Amino acid sequence: MTEFSIISRYFQSLTTQDISVGIGDDCAVFSPPENQQLVSCIDTLVAGRHFLPDAPAHAIGWKSVAVNLSDLAAMGATPHSVLLALSLPTLNEDWLAEFSRGIADCCQQYGVQLIGGDTTQNPTLTISITALGWVAPHQAILRSGAQVGDFIAVTGQIGSAAYALRYPDSALQNTLDYPIPQVEFGLALRGYASSMLDVSDGLAQDLGHILHASQVGARIQFEQIPMADEIKTLALDTQKALVLAGGDDYQLCFTISAENLNKFTQKFDFKPYIIGQIESGSVCHFFNQQQAFTLKQSGYQHFATTSH
Amino acid sequence: MTEFSIISRYFQSLTTQDISVGIGDDCAVFSPPENQQLVSCIDTLVAGRHFLPDAPAHAIGWKSVAVNLSDLAAMGATPHSVLLALSLPTLNEDWLAEFSRGIADCCQQYGVQLIGGDTTQNPTLTISITALGWVAPHQAILRSGAQVGDFIAVTGQIGSAAYALRYPDSALQNTLDYPIPQVEFGLALRGYASSMLDVSDGLAQDLGHILHASQVGARIQFEQIPMADEIKTLALDTQKALVLAGGDDYQLCFTISAENLNKFTQKFDFKPYIIGQIESGSVCHFFNQQQAFTLKQSGYQHFATTSH
Repeated sequence: MTEFSIISRYFQSLTTQDISVGIGDDCAVFSPPENQQLVSCIDTLVAGRHFLPDAPAHAIGWKSVAVNLSDLAAMGATPHSVLLALSLPTLNEDWLAEFSRGIADCCQQYGVQLIGGDTTQNPTLTISITALGWVAPHQAILRSGAQVGDFIAVTGQIGSAAYALRYPDSALQNTLDYPIPQVEFGLALRGYASSMLDVSDGLAQDLGHILHASQVGARIQFEQIPMADEIKTLALDTQKALVLAGGDDYQLCFTISAENLNKFTQKFDFKPYIIGQIESGSVCHFFNQQQAFTLKQSGYQHFATTSH
Repeated sequence: MTEFSIISRYFQSLTTQDISVGIGDDCAVFSPPENQQLVSCIDTLVAGRHFLPDAPAHAIGWKSVAVNLSDLAAMGATPHSVLLALSLPTLNEDWLAEFSRGIADCCQQYGVQLIGGDTTQNPTLTISITALGWVAPHQAILRSGAQVGDFIAVTGQIGSAAYALRYPDSALQNTLDYPIPQVEFGLALRGYASSMLDVSDGLAQDLGHILHASQVGARIQFEQIPMADEIKTLALDTQKALVLAGGDDYQLCFTISAENLNKFTQKFDFKPYIIGQIESGSVCHFFNQQQAFTLKQSGYQHFATTSH
């Protein structure tokens, strides 16, 4: 089977509405909606790093799309389409069928189309996806808007995927295999949140990006962070490691003024979990039940083995 | 060095004009020009497959961008920006500095910006790039528009990169390491060419995509295909293998009516090389000096080792 038959057999049917040119030409072509800005990102998943080598192919397909939609959600953008670069060690048609079904299921769930693809051979299974979406001018929620006094909030439980990675086959396995991008929650936060990102590399490290971009500090109340019951039964140090430095959460972390929080909760059913507050300075202070503590590791290091 | 310092040190400065949000947030954000369609593609380069593992990092950076701009050129699109997904085995700062300089040089040459990136660790150096560009509605040049009687043309010499791969350190080495995307030529062909693609996997195989999409056949005059003098000195069978099935050319192959060819050559300085003609049917017939011949292999098979 050639690259061309892979694409036409497994992926061509995933291009549908409003696309002038989809899979099967050199590029995809479509018209932007009026008065919208293009929002784009690229994210790579590598076997053995971002998913276990024996993870179900359907889950790998789902997750590849989901983590990119999570980046769009973190801007408050409406997802539109994805492009897939698939690098495979060998051709396994059963695997490809399941993988493409996972891609299709996640695309369908969020009204997104696969508009382009490229397949290559690679000793290590590697999946890069570009996601494209739209946001009205000046509506994108950046990392740089946090203000002193803003509340810090997350959209759901943190640490579950890290727990599932450490304790295989637990009831939390799905949070690792099938992350749910917070697309609707992110859209609702436009005009309310002052800054936002998605939690992919560990809450403490990712929050650090907001603090750095906004030139502010923060105070986090660990006991206010929502977490699964499974995690609450663990030793406190393990809780902290999983929740603050675990990664793969794909919840949104955002800042919001007291006034906007009030308006937001009156207007929407979404329930943000307040976990702390923005302070002046540049440091993040962690407290558990009034007691200050420091973190040994703040999150996932993509190149932790290097000496630099 | 973390992922974040890699991006900020080597790539952040490559975002410049007209971008609302560039590298450093979850996504890039910018406004489309009025009345233009978005053109997008994704292409992956894998060490040992798309470039030699010891190829100069600067050349790898250049080529990664160039092959994607070539896909935009094949639509007659104006390139705008690229997103980079870089998967590296180890952090080598000298390599990264040269690689990012290669990316920057190619971006600058074609007025393109790097607007987003992702770096991950991977045993095999793998580079995926998404290129974004613009084309006026109904102006994109597809694979499906070839008409019986149209001339078949290419924009430059074919087979040089395949020669360079087979005979290292020849005078043609640069055609392999530093492909030149035919952006201006592609733009000029809007409104003239009836179908187009870029030659990346071998002329015969790529032309086959036009024939398949347009539901036509073709007749190719091998002796009319422009090729380097180095190739002309080789045995005829080797010439055919390099020129028709070599790949990595990144010239454009297009079809054009006699009337449009006449108008085009009167208006532009670009010189297309006519190599054959579209016929009815579905087969490509090859001739050399009136003598029919058949091809053993038509182009690069991405999964040639499989039994399927």
